[in-house]
Amino acid sequence: MNISHIEHIGIAVKSIDEAKKYYEGVLGLKCYAVEEVKDQKVKTAFFKVGDTKIELLEPTDPEGPVGKFIEKKGEGIHHIAFAVKGIEDALSEIEGKDINLIDKSPRKGAEGLDIAFLHPKSTFGVLTEICEDKSNK
Amino acid sequence: MNISHIEHIGIAVKSIDEAKKYYEGVLGLKCYAVEEVKDQKVKTAFFKVGDTKIELLEPTDPEGPVGKFIEKKGEGIHHIAFAVKGIEDALSEIEGKDINLIDKSPRKGAEGLDIAFLHPKSTFGVLTEICEDKSNK
Repeated sequence: MNISHIEHIGIAVKSIDEAKKYYEGVLGLKCYAVEEVKDQKVKTAFFKVGDTKIELLEPTDPEGPVGKFIEKKGEGIHHIAFAVKGIEDALSEIEGKDINLIDKSPRKGAEGLDIAFLHPKSTFGVLTEICEDKSNK
Repeated sequence: MNISHIEHIGIAVKSIDEAKKYYEGVLGLKCYAVEEVKDQKVKTAFFKVGDTKIELLEPTDPEGPVGKFIEKKGEGIHHIAFAVKGIEDALSEIEGKDINLIDKSPRKGAEGLDIAFLHPKSTFGVLTEICEDKSNK
């Protein structure tokens, strides 16, 4: 598998407006985009840091995956996303190595990326996403 | 504050030897260093991914911070570390903004970095490190 970099780190927050005060006002990062991903029942806010992004995730529905995460664990780091080339081949390779996939084929995520999640039971507790920006090809 | 990139993502694991099978054998990353940080009661293993590193943290003592983290929350993402220039000034700036600091002045971490932690109560649930590689100056 060809991982080029960490595309983003997803962080679950109750309120993007509140968390932005810390990420912008204290860390000095700049929010460059806010986007709702209806499929995932979240609003997202992005900050670029080097070649990686911080993706804040605010639930739009308490029954969605991020809403449930916050209810169970509180606010905090939700997932890591690795940028790959050839996401379909990467998923086949991963599945062939007995890793439990949440998404057996890619779906659309924020920023138009093709994304797929690996189950944290197979990845030592880390909810792991692989993603590909096919608009760059 | 001047953050250049995400220096590393710290991930708590029970066994570096076991987790390495996933990070190397499935994700195709390469462990380039293993180091014990006695002060933190952990063994660390590093993998470079773009301009960021994955830092696996295996407790060497169940009573250390990572040992307690795993006991309470299980394996998973432990902290994010932002690379800064001028860590002392950055800490003063952060403290002036009413953020609760775990380390009021920098101490030595893995790879010879100067590091300091911010308390997750002040950072929306994310244990946050700032660090500086003064050997680059």
